[in-house]
Amino acid sequence: MKSAALISIGNELLSGETVDTNVSYLCRHLLLCGIPTVNIFTVPDEISSIVDAFEQATRRADVVLVTGGLGPTGDDVTREALAAFLKVELRFCEDLQEQIAGFFARRGFEMAPSNRIQAFLPAGARALQNSQGTAPGIAVDWQGRFIACMPGVPAEMKQMFSDHLNDYLKQLAGGQSVAARKLMCYGAGESTIASMLGERMERGRNPLVNSTAQAGLVTIHIVAAAAEQASAEQMVEHERAELCQILGNIIYGYDGQTMAEVVGAALADRGKTLAIAESCTGGLLGQLITDVPGSSRYFKCGWITYSNEAKSRDLDVDSGLLEQCGAVSEEVAQAMALGARKKAGADYGIAITGIAGPDGGTEAKPVGLVYIALNTINGSRCERFVFPFTRPIMRLRTALAALNMLRLEL
Amino acid sequence: MKSAALISIGNELLSGETVDTNVSYLCRHLLLCGIPTVNIFTVPDEISSIVDAFEQATRRADVVLVTGGLGPTGDDVTREALAAFLKVELRFCEDLQEQIAGFFARRGFEMAPSNRIQAFLPAGARALQNSQGTAPGIAVDWQGRFIACMPGVPAEMKQMFSDHLNDYLKQLAGGQSVAARKLMCYGAGESTIASMLGERMERGRNPLVNSTAQAGLVTIHIVAAAAEQASAEQMVEHERAELCQILGNIIYGYDGQTMAEVVGAALADRGKTLAIAESCTGGLLGQLITDVPGSSRYFKCGWITYSNEAKSRDLDVDSGLLEQCGAVSEEVAQAMALGARKKAGADYGIAITGIAGPDGGTEAKPVGLVYIALNTINGSRCERFVFPFTRPIMRLRTALAALNMLRLEL
Repeated sequence: MKSAALISIGNELLSGETVDTNVSYLCRHLLLCGIPTVNIFTVPDEISSIVDAFEQATRRADVVLVTGGLGPTGDDVTREALAAFLKVELRFCEDLQEQIAGFFARRGFEMAPSNRIQAFLPAGARALQNSQGTAPGIAVDWQGRFIACMPGVPAEMKQMFSDHLNDYLKQLAGGQSVAARKLMCYGAGESTIASMLGERMERGRNPLVNSTAQAGLVTIHIVAAAAEQASAEQMVEHERAELCQILGNIIYGYDGQTMAEVVGAALADRGKTLAIAESCTGGLLGQLITDVPGSSRYFKCGWITYSNEAKSRDLDVDSGLLEQCGAVSEEVAQAMALGARKKAGADYGIAITGIAGPDGGTEAKPVGLVYIALNTINGSRCERFVFPFTRPIMRLRTALAALNMLRLEL
Repeated sequence: MKSAALISIGNELLSGETVDTNVSYLCRHLLLCGIPTVNIFTVPDEISSIVDAFEQATRRADVVLVTGGLGPTGDDVTREALAAFLKVELRFCEDLQEQIAGFFARRGFEMAPSNRIQAFLPAGARALQNSQGTAPGIAVDWQGRFIACMPGVPAEMKQMFSDHLNDYLKQLAGGQSVAARKLMCYGAGESTIASMLGERMERGRNPLVNSTAQAGLVTIHIVAAAAEQASAEQMVEHERAELCQILGNIIYGYDGQTMAEVVGAALADRGKTLAIAESCTGGLLGQLITDVPGSSRYFKCGWITYSNEAKSRDLDVDSGLLEQCGAVSEEVAQAMALGARKKAGADYGIAITGIAGPDGGTEAKPVGLVYIALNTINGSRCERFVFPFTRPIMRLRTALAALNMLRLEL
């Protein structure tokens, strides 16, 4: 079985300025290619340290993936370090320079002279095109090893990996085929899910089942290995079906789907439309909904009614009601949801009102309290939550809870 | 100057299930102790790999901090690996076992037999008490190096570091104090800034200046080392002043400030208010603005007018204008900004209309095209941008450009 080593390059990774999320993305995707990662090296922007890492990495692994240090500035020396390790010179590539200049041109800029360095490649290496930025990647075969250098910017690295490396590495791995599936869960914690799944989550099992949690969402990873791709797929599918039996509607989607994608697809399928009114989330719910390409088919509009004035003016919330119950109340949430749906002429209206904090909480209405109302032609309902977290997490949990209410309604 | 190496131990770090946040915490705090990190090793729960990492780390650094693999289960082998590296045996410590049993007792539990393994220490090593969990840390001096092993659970590691290591490492570093400052920049790429700063960004300089970029923002890091903390602070402050001279209003803030915080503070200082109208960003601008605690002082409200219907109904955009110029046009952006400011009775109105993609682009109006209008009592202006990136990045760039227009206006 082939193995991989990763080299993360950048002073910012060693100063603690940046958390290196590239490695977890690459480890996960390498595993899906059938190539486990055996070592990760994190080194500063120094030629000697990088060459040293190349030597150790190529000693340990068949595939070496490098991120960072391909930028145009003086402290970006990955290009030079790779050439030094390979003991070859850097060669200027006319067509590569044209690609880079083209990237600037499309944005209506002149290419800065310093970007010219990005058009140099170690002799014998090939460029990996970067559709998201100026820095081309570099790939080279060396003494039976495959080495690829990618930009450190996660969006650029991910695009480059799927454009140029994913399929290639799958082939390279040969032998054991690996199939994987993710189940996206909401409404139960990791430990609850673990106790529901019991010995299915034991280590070393094939298919392997484990979970990761983030901001109220739990992702269950299923990975199966077999001689044939088809049988690996079958094993994963069989496991998936059984887990769905056990977990029911805790599972909201698959393979990294967002709650907004699932809810959006359900709305589109039914030809229904949505309008929203947000107070404490201040636009976050709208942002999550419109993150989905094509959301204009079902998302009509939203109001960010951050003041009482706006709630009355734009959503016809009775100002007496605001006086009497307060902006953060079931009554006002209901009125906002109704107002949003009616004004927009939508099928569903969602409203959020709460206290994101850090200030503004009271004994009766603590920071983290939120009311979420869902209004439809057939009536409306409201749920009360308390998310006693930091402001950003409270806001994210609230938006997810709102989407989940609509998901279960649909 | 003393240097540090980190060893992160755990299969979960190599499978990509967990993002290792411990290293960035440790790098940051080591730097503040005056000890820069020169290498990070991430290795699986295997004695041979861990011993190997110990050998390389002690060759490169004076201080080696290890996280992970101290738990009670079979796959936790850091203890054994350290003993193997030191070539000493593991010794059972009665009092350590009592500490661990005490931790369980305080929570009304019996100590599980498996936890007995945690009461073993390599001969010559000392335990670091863990106030947050059962796994004690291990510290040992070896051939002029200092080695400390801590649990992988971030909360336990952080508490243990500040309880037992922070002060000790400050002393160990002796002399050299370190001061750091960040300049937050917008409106110029890393390469442009590099060419503006020239030799100030050369490696090995003190103070050291380097930059990192993310989603259109560039952060300039200034780090200075000196015998006295006061003089290190002075050097950083002096450098900061000079960089501000050179970069002018490219610098929007300091030390991790967001653009929304800076704009919000400026609005609050002047007692001015803001209303927004978003199309392609779908709430993202509102979310960024309201991420800031207390934003209700200056943020009145927002409209997510995702449809033409909503633009006319809520913002009084003339439907003829929408017909004639199209929703994505300077004219409509201007009308939206005016409508938002007037309706809300705010001092400033910002409007965004564009094509986030991936579909909906044309020759004349490509994906990534966006018009941003800013309307005030004294008139209004509109800027045209093209951000040919993925949908989420295009939206983020757009929201930042809108905030920056208001920043420069203020």
